[in-house]
Amino acid sequence: MTYTPPVAPDDVRAAAVRIAGVAHRTPVLRSRTLDRMVGAEVFLKCENFQRVGAFKFRGAYNAVSRLPEEQRARGVAAYSSGNHAQAVALAARLLGTGAVILMPEDAPPSKLRATAGYGAEIITYDRYRGDRGALCAELAAERGLALIPPYDHPHVIAGQGTAALELLQDTGPLDALVVPVGGGGLIAGSATAAKGLYPELRVIGVEPEAGDDTRRSLEAGRRITIDVPRTIADGQALPVPGEVTFPIIQRLVDAVELVTDDEIRRAMRFAFERLKIVVEPSGATGLAALLSGRVTSPSGRGTDQAGATADPGGKAAGPGGDAASPGGSAAGRGGRRVGVIISGGNVDADRFAALCAP
Amino acid sequence: MTYTPPVAPDDVRAAAVRIAGVAHRTPVLRSRTLDRMVGAEVFLKCENFQRVGAFKFRGAYNAVSRLPEEQRARGVAAYSSGNHAQAVALAARLLGTGAVILMPEDAPPSKLRATAGYGAEIITYDRYRGDRGALCAELAAERGLALIPPYDHPHVIAGQGTAALELLQDTGPLDALVVPVGGGGLIAGSATAAKGLYPELRVIGVEPEAGDDTRRSLEAGRRITIDVPRTIADGQALPVPGEVTFPIIQRLVDAVELVTDDEIRRAMRFAFERLKIVVEPSGATGLAALLSGRVTSPSGRGTDQAGATADPGGKAAGPGGDAASPGGSAAGRGGRRVGVIISGGNVDADRFAALCAP
Repeated sequence: MTYTPPVAPDDVRAAAVRIAGVAHRTPVLRSRTLDRMVGAEVFLKCENFQRVGAFKFRGAYNAVSRLPEEQRARGVAAYSSGNHAQAVALAARLLGTGAVILMPEDAPPSKLRATAGYGAEIITYDRYRGDRGALCAELAAERGLALIPPYDHPHVIAGQGTAALELLQDTGPLDALVVPVGGGGLIAGSATAAKGLYPELRVIGVEPEAGDDTRRSLEAGRRITIDVPRTIADGQALPVPGEVTFPIIQRLVDAVELVTDDEIRRAMRFAFERLKIVVEPSGATGLAALLSGRVTSPSGRGTDQAGATADPGGKAAGPGGDAASPGGSAAGRGGRRVGVIISGGNVDADRFAALCAP
Repeated sequence: MTYTPPVAPDDVRAAAVRIAGVAHRTPVLRSRTLDRMVGAEVFLKCENFQRVGAFKFRGAYNAVSRLPEEQRARGVAAYSSGNHAQAVALAARLLGTGAVILMPEDAPPSKLRATAGYGAEIITYDRYRGDRGALCAELAAERGLALIPPYDHPHVIAGQGTAALELLQDTGPLDALVVPVGGGGLIAGSATAAKGLYPELRVIGVEPEAGDDTRRSLEAGRRITIDVPRTIADGQALPVPGEVTFPIIQRLVDAVELVTDDEIRRAMRFAFERLKIVVEPSGATGLAALLSGRVTSPSGRGTDQAGATADPGGKAAGPGGDAASPGGSAAGRGGRRVGVIISGGNVDADRFAALCAP
């Protein structure tokens, strides 16, 4: 039997057309310091600058916009640890319909506030007890709402894939693409777009160490459920890969690396102090993997320290630090030219201070 | 007698050519939320993404590059509360010469480290006692170094003005330009560039309330010296406007607004949480003036809440918050289209946490 993937590269391209002019085409940042530190040319796709502060808007808008008109008019429902909530709330408002959002009661207050601020009705639940999927399905059925899942839907996955599509349109061929993995929507869509353009490109997922369900599932060859992980990477605190996303990940993702909460904190701090950008814990896991030497090889880093590169046009102005002198770049395990998706920036100043205090 | 300004618009244009490809052409950010809050279209020129993390690199590089070759070869010296130090250190390194930097001993540790990291020799002094200008002049004379002043030099001023020149090239005509004022190099250069392009454009300086030497000097019609101000805006903790910069400011700057340290903190927090960018205290004073209603009029803000605008191309992708719906913008005291120079982003995570904790 032939496997027909639920999302094809053309679906991502179609989503890109649908979200054009509504979602931001986010900038790609460069940093001489980062290049030198990891021995590669690094391209950071900054979805922290996306609408609602995270890539989630791409998938949510694509999915809500593709609902049949009558269904859309009745309103939408979603469950989310935060960014998907805001994304669906905003997408619904932009498309002229209502949203009911189920959020964990311990979601960051800024995310609860922001979601309410987009005009959505919020219902909270206990993250460590309730089956949010079932709760939300029930709610949607009761009220006749269309459920917009956070990752397990082809339209959501295709929308998220536009992040990688844009990045690769800006950078051209890359050797590796590093993508945070939560439910798997971002990496499934991104891998679909990336392998569609460059089949040889290595797609590397990153999970928080406490939430390694996708890595374990890949090793086992089937979806493994773990305890709900307790990690600062709240966007990745999920116990099991998605039903729709996992087969895509199995087929297209080359490796999943793990990062500790401390490594995530260091990456957030690096982004703050050197790149001058705000990145939430989940959003920083790709950068954390890179800074921890899990993407470019240690030997690559050891033998070639020069990694300064010319900045592309104004769009990709490289902020912060500076490297000594131009020179060749090191080829590591993940390759010479590495894309990283910075997936979101929704962390309030108090939480950042609490997380990143020495 | 005709007054011949020490810096003309052509000098800024010449500096732009000189720094092209070396300094970053920094992005111009937009925010729907900000536009809505202040009732204007706001264009943020993000010099926190400049090399060394602040606009200072522009002036330093222009000045060092314009030294006669023999003089440049002997090395350069500078005194600075921080960003100018790093800027001169990097400019010297890029231009193949050495730098000796006199820094206040209470400068943020990150700035001391970064300056040393660029290979400069650092000498510290007591900010509240030593006459740094005299100390540095002595040092320069002893060692035969060329002194690169932080603001009081036409080549430095012309270099800083390239920030406004680039902004206006990207935005076209603006009604107002809001610029932080320390020694006056940035605003003198920016006003020169801005009035050269658009004589009707209103140039508004912003000082920390404790460091209102320029505002007082403008009122008095001569340079007034105040006690060294104690403010979180360390880049603006200066007691007197520059000799070279002040006459330019007198001629070209329309108003100087003051902001409190608390208003600066709120602006830093806003930049962090809504714009996802890191801004140091001095860098946030322009934004603070805007958010405090000192640039656009309260009536303008009250009568028209809609300020959502289309984003320009990818370069100026608007991060963060979202406005409800497109619509007309309010014309306030400072005008409908307002540029703000975000002058720097060099604040380490610990200091940010300490400053912005609730």
